[in-house]
Amino acid sequence: MPYVTVKMLEGRTDEQKKALVEKVTDAVVETTGASREKVVVFLEDMKKSEYAVGGTRLSDQD
Amino acid sequence: MPYVTVKMLEGRTDEQKKALVEKVTDAVVETTGASREKVVVFLEDMKKSEYAVGGTRLSDQD
Amino acid sequence: MPYVTVKMLEGRTDEQKKALVEKVTDAVVETTGASREKVVVFLEDMKKSEYAVGGTRLSDQD
Amino acid sequence: MPYVTVKMLEGRTDEQKKALVEKVTDAVVETTGASREKVVVFLEDMKKSEYAVGGTRLSDQD
Amino acid sequence: MPYVTVKMLEGRTDEQKKALVEKVTDAVVETTGASREKVVVFLEDMKKSEYAVGGTRLSDQD
Amino acid sequence: MPYVTVKMLEGRTDEQKKALVEKVTDAVVETTGASREKVVVFLEDMKKSEYAVGGTRLSDQD
Repeated sequence: MPYVTVKMLEGRTDEQKKALVEKVTDAVVETTGASREKVVVFLEDMKKSEYAVGGTRLSDQD
Repeated sequence: MPYVTVKMLEGRTDEQKKALVEKVTDAVVETTGASREKVVVFLEDMKKSEYAVGGTRLSDQD
Repeated sequence: MPYVTVKMLEGRTDEQKKALVEKVTDAVVETTGASREKVVVFLEDMKKSEYAVGGTRLSDQD
Repeated sequence: MPYVTVKMLEGRTDEQKKALVEKVTDAVVETTGASREKVVVFLEDMKKSEYAVGGTRLSDQD
Repeated sequence: MPYVTVKMLEGRTDEQKKALVEKVTDAVVETTGASREKVVVFLEDMKKSEYAVGGTRLSDQD
Repeated sequence: MPYVTVKMLEGRTDEQKKALVEKVTDAVVETTGASREKVVVFLEDMKKSEYAVGGTRLSDQD
């Protein structure tokens, strides 16, 4: 605890995801006082066909 | 904002998903006064093996 | 099934929420072929202090 | 209702998932008084590359 | 890990919630082989005005 | 997009939450290349009575 879920479009590299998890954990520890080993991060990739803004999916905008 | 997540069994066509996102967005705009470009919709497909009602997964009912 | 979660800023009236649930259910039934009595909608209100865009919470923008 | 979501690392067998759904539903019915046919369970598998504890993804620990 | 979220109508007693968490954890440990101290359970209470089936909120059915 | 949800025990100060949102957004922008104004953060407070580890709620551990 805390538990962080990051939901984003698929396509980031493994390196980006590795850095993302590390930096987000740093941010949570620094600002909430939580102990590092307790911070959990879930990554959720979305396809363009599963994500819409303003009534149109990104897959329908291409 | 608002953010709408639709979780449903996999199997709908791309056309159905396109129409779903559009109509759900219409419904949100019409009833909440939110501006259309701010409405976000996430679609989440479920496998029959990931979804159970009454203690039995749909994949175990076939 | 399907299961729809609508996450939005608190402040909508009870009438708006009643209409929102009805119209979203109409949209889901119309486009996915799901039977009406199976469609579930969850409403989740957010406080301005729990919601941030671009690094700033709406409560810190006032 | 109630709605139970179980998020866990991928890798459990189909038999384990079948038993998991059954036993979790038993537990919910026994303790909340909910009727069995109303209890819904969603299973969500996570990849090691999508799950981090203490700033490091399990996929980066191997 | 695993992480279990139970979303249900508000109104269960503290005793029921205590037993629910215990029995759900038992079920997860028994069927997935997860170690007990790693199993996390989140409880989420819903108001009748936040939950609809078939287009009508439970609060509008009373 | 990306969308970050931080679920944690209630009790952090408003200042901590303000800093948390800011630093988490910094981390996401820095590592994913997302543009700052697109990053959304949701904060979700949990009561001790809604959160259990190893079969026991924190409220039952006091």
